[in-house]
Amino acid sequence: MLQDAPRKPRTSRRNRSQSPRSNERGQNLHLRVPFITRKIPTYDLLGEEALQKIEATADRILAEIGIELREDEEALWLYREAGAKVTEISAQAWNLKFEPGMIREILKTAPGRFTQYARNPANNVEIGGDTMVFAPSYGSPFVMDMDNGRRYGTIADFENLVKLAQSSPWLHHSGGTICEPTDVPVNKRHLDMVYAHMRYSDRAFLGSITAPERAADSIEMCRILFGSDFVNRNCVIMGNFNTTSPLVLDGVTTAGIRTYAEAGQASIHLPFLLGGAVAPLTMAGAVAQCLAESMASCALTQLVRPGAPAVLAGFLSSMSLRSGSPTFGTPEPALGSLVMGQLARRLDMPLRCAGNFSTSKLPDGQAMQQSMMSMMSAIQGGANYILHSAGFLDGLLSMSYEKFVMDCDMAGALHAYMAGIEVNEDTLGFEALAQNGPGEHLFGTDHTLRHYQNAYWDSAMNDDQPFETWSEQGGTDYAQVANQRWKDLLNAYEAPAMDPTLDDALKDFVTRKKASMPDAWY
Amino acid sequence: MLQDAPRKPRTSRRNRSQSPRSNERGQNLHLRVPFITRKIPTYDLLGEEALQKIEATADRILAEIGIELREDEEALWLYREAGAKVTEISAQAWNLKFEPGMIREILKTAPGRFTQYARNPANNVEIGGDTMVFAPSYGSPFVMDMDNGRRYGTIADFENLVKLAQSSPWLHHSGGTICEPTDVPVNKRHLDMVYAHMRYSDRAFLGSITAPERAADSIEMCRILFGSDFVNRNCVIMGNFNTTSPLVLDGVTTAGIRTYAEAGQASIHLPFLLGGAVAPLTMAGAVAQCLAESMASCALTQLVRPGAPAVLAGFLSSMSLRSGSPTFGTPEPALGSLVMGQLARRLDMPLRCAGNFSTSKLPDGQAMQQSMMSMMSAIQGGANYILHSAGFLDGLLSMSYEKFVMDCDMAGALHAYMAGIEVNEDTLGFEALAQNGPGEHLFGTDHTLRHYQNAYWDSAMNDDQPFETWSEQGGTDYAQVANQRWKDLLNAYEAPAMDPTLDDALKDFVTRKKASMPDAWY
Repeated sequence: MLQDAPRKPRTSRRNRSQSPRSNERGQNLHLRVPFITRKIPTYDLLGEEALQKIEATADRILAEIGIELREDEEALWLYREAGAKVTEISAQAWNLKFEPGMIREILKTAPGRFTQYARNPANNVEIGGDTMVFAPSYGSPFVMDMDNGRRYGTIADFENLVKLAQSSPWLHHSGGTICEPTDVPVNKRHLDMVYAHMRYSDRAFLGSITAPERAADSIEMCRILFGSDFVNRNCVIMGNFNTTSPLVLDGVTTAGIRTYAEAGQASIHLPFLLGGAVAPLTMAGAVAQCLAESMASCALTQLVRPGAPAVLAGFLSSMSLRSGSPTFGTPEPALGSLVMGQLARRLDMPLRCAGNFSTSKLPDGQAMQQSMMSMMSAIQGGANYILHSAGFLDGLLSMSYEKFVMDCDMAGALHAYMAGIEVNEDTLGFEALAQNGPGEHLFGTDHTLRHYQNAYWDSAMNDDQPFETWSEQGGTDYAQVANQRWKDLLNAYEAPAMDPTLDDALKDFVTRKKASMPDAWY
Repeated sequence: MLQDAPRKPRTSRRNRSQSPRSNERGQNLHLRVPFITRKIPTYDLLGEEALQKIEATADRILAEIGIELREDEEALWLYREAGAKVTEISAQAWNLKFEPGMIREILKTAPGRFTQYARNPANNVEIGGDTMVFAPSYGSPFVMDMDNGRRYGTIADFENLVKLAQSSPWLHHSGGTICEPTDVPVNKRHLDMVYAHMRYSDRAFLGSITAPERAADSIEMCRILFGSDFVNRNCVIMGNFNTTSPLVLDGVTTAGIRTYAEAGQASIHLPFLLGGAVAPLTMAGAVAQCLAESMASCALTQLVRPGAPAVLAGFLSSMSLRSGSPTFGTPEPALGSLVMGQLARRLDMPLRCAGNFSTSKLPDGQAMQQSMMSMMSAIQGGANYILHSAGFLDGLLSMSYEKFVMDCDMAGALHAYMAGIEVNEDTLGFEALAQNGPGEHLFGTDHTLRHYQNAYWDSAMNDDQPFETWSEQGGTDYAQVANQRWKDLLNAYEAPAMDPTLDDALKDFVTRKKASMPDAWY
């Protein structure tokens, strides 16, 4: 019959649209979740004695070297009231020393796990304990793709990347500054970015932290989106705050932290530790410093509002011995990230750590090799919030469209990894082998037919075809596959529905705020 | 002064040769070892109860379904004498059933760790316990490189690849059939391959297993190289034997196993389990079958010669639900490999498992992403001998020159990973932070100066330079870097010294053996 009608396409457009989605590549409907709950144990690298030494060193750093606080008298007052020993360095800089154990005591009111609400309740994420949340990379000034190379990011890129994130079932969170929208004035960017997250995604996201008033704007926009009462009672936004390593908290950062905490919103407290530059280059020391800095920063939230969600964090990096350049996706920081997981669990605090790091300038073999080294440490170490899960290239200077979709596909594979191995009568499969016996294949066994749809992760992008088929179809490399994929995803993207009144209210807020101040470009 | 002589090359040939090797990229002299001794714990995925269920299922497979042995009456006699219940299936096929525990009892004489000697004693490797040995990929009929694409492997390729392996400080073992030398008659290939390993490498290697007489030739050549007395007393060669899954041992394989074991040489016992095709596609079942098959095969060695080294093994693979094609570097088999590590340790037997697997047809992002997923499971799971550590592409059908050197570089990074994190007063680095205090960089601290040379893995291939520098230097991707690197390594290769008398004796053996039989091409 088919031979009689050779010109008829095998699958008509109509047939395609009727086929269940699970017949498309990479669907894996059984693995889709708003956030991952790990079913595999964490990979615990160090034993009790070594962990105690690291914790004791962190305590000693806080007690004997101290943290330098700059230009925030409100934070100074809070730390001093809590018992910090304050030494004035200058009119706007103070050294704070904390007796061993003091910071840990303050952190006891921080929740071990909390919910960040999304405008689509199906996308609420829980952060802490055995959960894991993937978010796109954060903070690159440049974007790159295979067609146009590297250039400064724009708000159009930013919107594209929010849409790509929303398109992937394997990210759980819209992230924050996916790229810097450098065509928007510095003092107004946060408005466009927060609006884009709210409008083009229906997932949870990060707000602005670059100035306290921008943090306040971010929260204000949440009050429009979620309602003020809801925001007062729940966490709907997070801010990602960097310490100024080594051992400094600057006043813009602490004021931002206070803004989020006062509103009961969550904050992430990240030392970005480039070993040898701003931290010891031995990993035990870097981890001890990371713990000390992040704990001291987290503690401020509890002094502002006990119970406010705070996330311990660490971005560990190495450097090239030759050039002094930072290096990413190397083995030593991967080990350090595993240890950060152990330390966070001992504090019973949520952790942000590691991600898909790379120094490569292209979405090539180096990029994915380095990324995997780093990303495996995040998921095995038990990090709960993984920023930089998609798009990271060029030592974080560039957000890559192609790497973004590559990383998303791998994020899906990690859903299968985190699901672990179920061991029961059915999965042990004795009957599968017994049915036909030695020497007979298992394609047609009841066991195979029962399990074949969900047994294995199905990638949307990897080429598993025979060489000849792959070659006939053009012999493309993975970067080319990714280049086509992000374009297809953007073409197919549909914005999640939003009440037009709400949309207008958000737009109105943005317009009024923008009109209220002149453009600033620094 | 330099500006006065702008045409003088910055580094003359003479200067380069005078510079200490540690100033070249990727040297990492402090990490060089003949084999790795792990300083990090294994990643133990399953708990006691689940492991017992898997072991009980393996025992039940052996007791109730049994193993089919074909065309080897000598092996039949050995298994029967040991207590196997034999049922004749045909004149040359028998079903063997083993009471629960019987195979484990037989395996008690197998060593938990053994030494394979190399012709250079500095390269002897220990296999078992907390050691890890990396060897090149094995068995691809095709080779590929970026210049000439994919073609059948030749003996010239084979020799090149032995030389590339020997050039890398991060492999420990020369492997076996790095590619099939398809231009040499099938019945004579083993002679050229074993000679190439002996002549162009001074590391340990694998011998032939494709026919018992070829196994015997391999061992005979070892008697020339090492002396017969030494071979009688020590393990100098290994054979890598595949079971015929599901649950079959064919006579050519068992005869080969007997040949190695009789000579006191080592053998690897590998079920290649493509889930859904020759094993249950639920990982618990695949692992149980893997254990059953590999144990039954290993047991034969102990029946031939108690104490002969035997390596438990597993090659776990998934398949595409769409095409039925095998898939490699996917998450489920990675989890299974971690469990195989647990099971091998409970048996106190060395393990071969996983490797740098990929289905990609190019040394691209997919290749390295899949490879890393798989390779991390090998090293975290505690596998002791990792075949397929370098060059694996195209679902094992192709050996890639570029991927070979990429994988070697990553194998080096894994040396740093396996070294773990040292925690002591010095590495905790309190003094490093105290020396300059908060807000001051650590570049010049005593601690940094003391540690900067060895603190971080130094890749020979990754590009960590700023984008602008990378771009000015040509903006190459990782595949191009690798393409240049394997050519440079082959150009720089120097064969390890060999006594000419010995070399002549080996050549003479090969010549005589080749002359003794007509070419066979199947």
